[in-house]
Amino acid sequence: MQEPKHGQSKPTNEVSDEGGSPGDIELERRLVVVTGSEANATGLLVIDPYNDFISEGGKAWDRIKAVADANQCIAHMSAVLRAARQASIRVFYALHRQYRPGDYETWKYIAPIQKVASASRIFEHGTWGGEIRREFEPQPGDLVASEHWCSSGFANTDLDLLLKRHGIQRLVVIGLIAHTCVEASVRFAAELGYDVTIVKDATADYSDEEMHAALEVNLPNYAKVITTREVIELLPKVRAPRWPQPSGEGT
Amino acid sequence: MQEPKHGQSKPTNEVSDEGGSPGDIELERRLVVVTGSEANATGLLVIDPYNDFISEGGKAWDRIKAVADANQCIAHMSAVLRAARQASIRVFYALHRQYRPGDYETWKYIAPIQKVASASRIFEHGTWGGEIRREFEPQPGDLVASEHWCSSGFANTDLDLLLKRHGIQRLVVIGLIAHTCVEASVRFAAELGYDVTIVKDATADYSDEEMHAALEVNLPNYAKVITTREVIELLPKVRAPRWPQPSGEGT
Amino acid sequence: MQEPKHGQSKPTNEVSDEGGSPGDIELERRLVVVTGSEANATGLLVIDPYNDFISEGGKAWDRIKAVADANQCIAHMSAVLRAARQASIRVFYALHRQYRPGDYETWKYIAPIQKVASASRIFEHGTWGGEIRREFEPQPGDLVASEHWCSSGFANTDLDLLLKRHGIQRLVVIGLIAHTCVEASVRFAAELGYDVTIVKDATADYSDEEMHAALEVNLPNYAKVITTREVIELLPKVRAPRWPQPSGEGT
Amino acid sequence: MQEPKHGQSKPTNEVSDEGGSPGDIELERRLVVVTGSEANATGLLVIDPYNDFISEGGKAWDRIKAVADANQCIAHMSAVLRAARQASIRVFYALHRQYRPGDYETWKYIAPIQKVASASRIFEHGTWGGEIRREFEPQPGDLVASEHWCSSGFANTDLDLLLKRHGIQRLVVIGLIAHTCVEASVRFAAELGYDVTIVKDATADYSDEEMHAALEVNLPNYAKVITTREVIELLPKVRAPRWPQPSGEGT
Repeated sequence: MQEPKHGQSKPTNEVSDEGGSPGDIELERRLVVVTGSEANATGLLVIDPYNDFISEGGKAWDRIKAVADANQCIAHMSAVLRAARQASIRVFYALHRQYRPGDYETWKYIAPIQKVASASRIFEHGTWGGEIRREFEPQPGDLVASEHWCSSGFANTDLDLLLKRHGIQRLVVIGLIAHTCVEASVRFAAELGYDVTIVKDATADYSDEEMHAALEVNLPNYAKVITTREVIELLPKVRAPRWPQPSGEGT
Repeated sequence: MQEPKHGQSKPTNEVSDEGGSPGDIELERRLVVVTGSEANATGLLVIDPYNDFISEGGKAWDRIKAVADANQCIAHMSAVLRAARQASIRVFYALHRQYRPGDYETWKYIAPIQKVASASRIFEHGTWGGEIRREFEPQPGDLVASEHWCSSGFANTDLDLLLKRHGIQRLVVIGLIAHTCVEASVRFAAELGYDVTIVKDATADYSDEEMHAALEVNLPNYAKVITTREVIELLPKVRAPRWPQPSGEGT
Repeated sequence: MQEPKHGQSKPTNEVSDEGGSPGDIELERRLVVVTGSEANATGLLVIDPYNDFISEGGKAWDRIKAVADANQCIAHMSAVLRAARQASIRVFYALHRQYRPGDYETWKYIAPIQKVASASRIFEHGTWGGEIRREFEPQPGDLVASEHWCSSGFANTDLDLLLKRHGIQRLVVIGLIAHTCVEASVRFAAELGYDVTIVKDATADYSDEEMHAALEVNLPNYAKVITTREVIELLPKVRAPRWPQPSGEGT
Repeated sequence: MQEPKHGQSKPTNEVSDEGGSPGDIELERRLVVVTGSEANATGLLVIDPYNDFISEGGKAWDRIKAVADANQCIAHMSAVLRAARQASIRVFYALHRQYRPGDYETWKYIAPIQKVASASRIFEHGTWGGEIRREFEPQPGDLVASEHWCSSGFANTDLDLLLKRHGIQRLVVIGLIAHTCVEASVRFAAELGYDVTIVKDATADYSDEEMHAALEVNLPNYAKVITTREVIELLPKVRAPRWPQPSGEGT
């Protein structure tokens, strides 16, 4: 389908896309900075904050470090997570399959990215690399979806169910890696009907080329792309009462 | 998750990825050029061959023409389609929602790419632009999936069902546009468990930058990326008997 | 999993299920009879109101008539639909595949119920039997999901997407046939995370045995089971303003 | 949709359904008792063989025991499992969510069956009741899908993915409980495009009424319903070579 962002000589039968305009941010503000049920319809999705990705000594850290540092990825992820908890925005985790011996040996078909995961044993179960980096560990009340096997946090997991069961319709997304799991999860979220915002300086990748492909070429079709500073401004500053209260139907 | 292709200084705990090596093509040959049930487990997926995309006078043709011509996209799509029919490879169509008045007015949430589709009325129902370019029209025995609303031919459609009901486990993909509907459909196919091959000179896009993002940055993670010449060599040259025969269980 | 309703000697480690108690109805009232966004989070799902099912002369009417008449199914379906429109509850349609020649001939696998549909050509495209009974025809603003091939209105269709895009999280269900499409759609809705209410006297079936299996044995596990009178009492009596207004984000 | 089995005065425009006829069994034999890829396209699905369901002392055993004993459920499940392993039929497990404290407290919506699961803490994580009964424990090479939250082993899990990645298109189903998880999983399998056979004497339920609803009223629409003796006769007697061999693509 069509592509809304790169503006070179669009045909006149198209409206201009307002992807990053001030008006759009204002709209976002109107929708996110709200009281009551709307704030509670927004969730934060944290993708694959594993040691193997974003900790010194992780299997892929040497390849990610340059982009991550330039983007202040870890500081920004922490800041968004803190602001979301402060605003009582519910936090969800999408985590890749922790490698276990025997995972792929019986498969008749395997995707290229899964061949690499199998060979590298990245996020190996029972190892430090397969643990979540300390400051991103799930807290009580957070929801951790079942593991995903490829790139999308939605594919073959209970993420969509957990979002629905908590009344979530809008997602703010942070985490790793921009052009694989983050892009896949954002694409799936939009396809499934969620309203998605991606925080472009709270992610990282192996190279600028891959960051560019994800954040500037592809994701503006499926999500609002904003900064950590912007998303923090948009979140409610006071702790909204969760709905339903603990005495509600879900208990 | 990890990314298998761009080779700069991979950590030693990773196997090298053989994405485009001769050995890989040989493997592909071994799997696709087969007799009996394996040939019948392979389907051709044709994505959005609408006049608005790839015919002179189509709403998006002026933006696509340069890349499409350079890639000989239309000739290659025709060649792959012809070879697939010759080999009795089943053909499936993934088609975007034809615009109809009222489609989006009641939506509470809408993705950026859908805003553009709504404003441009691309593929409008009842217009020439919303028809399939003549040489790509479905033939008797082809399967046309229900329309997709965003980019993936699998999301919210019966494509996965139709593939399963015909015993298809492997897909060869051609069509438009590389970084939106093609990339989305390939990503979904891999996530859902299909073995995918994308024909890189039987697609097109608005710019080389977007082609690059789709075909060189992202899709090698999820599919084999080969040329029209290669896929034609791999397809069976003689008409394999379909299975089941017309007297089988499905009738 | 466990079954909450039939009360014979439950083990003491189970809480009693309050499926049909007055307290439960009160809870339902508290949740459905609301102002603002909650009313707008509820949708009415109308399943397969085809002439072949519920009109004199329809292919299956002779088999359905006895149960439908005893249940006043058509009058009740009309009453619920009218009350929902009056309350500005959004209306969604789940419709079975209209039979078209060639639909199943190429399938490698087919379910028993689909064999029957294929042989009977029920809901044939282009025939009166495949049209919706007149008083249940969709109105402007209603949403019609893509056709389903088996029994669930959610499987392989865009129903989940359309519900999400309209902010719907709770469903009231009416239509045909209780133990096939209605039960399947309710089961899927619950599995996918929706809160479901089935109107037990706004459905019908081929026999009392099948009604019993669906409405008394199975569905109390997945939905609240109430009457037309009850659901009408629970719906808002005044026309709630829809949200978003026509000038909202979705336009 | 239509119901194929209960024969009272069907309209003449329907073909008779041959659900349990000798010809159907012969057809099944032709399709299952095969060499090469077809045997490898069939998987055995084992549903919820937890101690809480089918072991003396399990939380629900007192309610299930009468039907289970009358049906020789455990002996038949063991016999089918043994025969499948002998025939190199791949074995898949669909397991319900093991209860963990906090599972449901934050849910905005909950299905009735989940309220009961929450209150009873059935299949509690870390307890004997939440373990698989000893003779049904997964063996090396078996595939265990991620846990399901409601009744269907397919909903919000990786079961469909694991089946596809192993080339499985046909399922033989055994396990518990007939009218909830078994019926839900069979319905989903048929909706998703699998060819399904349910073994009617390798399941159990709380009552004959519920067994009847599942096995005689509903499931004949979606699956072949056969006995343990029949399925064992149909399975290959010699160990078919798995395909692909361990040196194949998937390794």
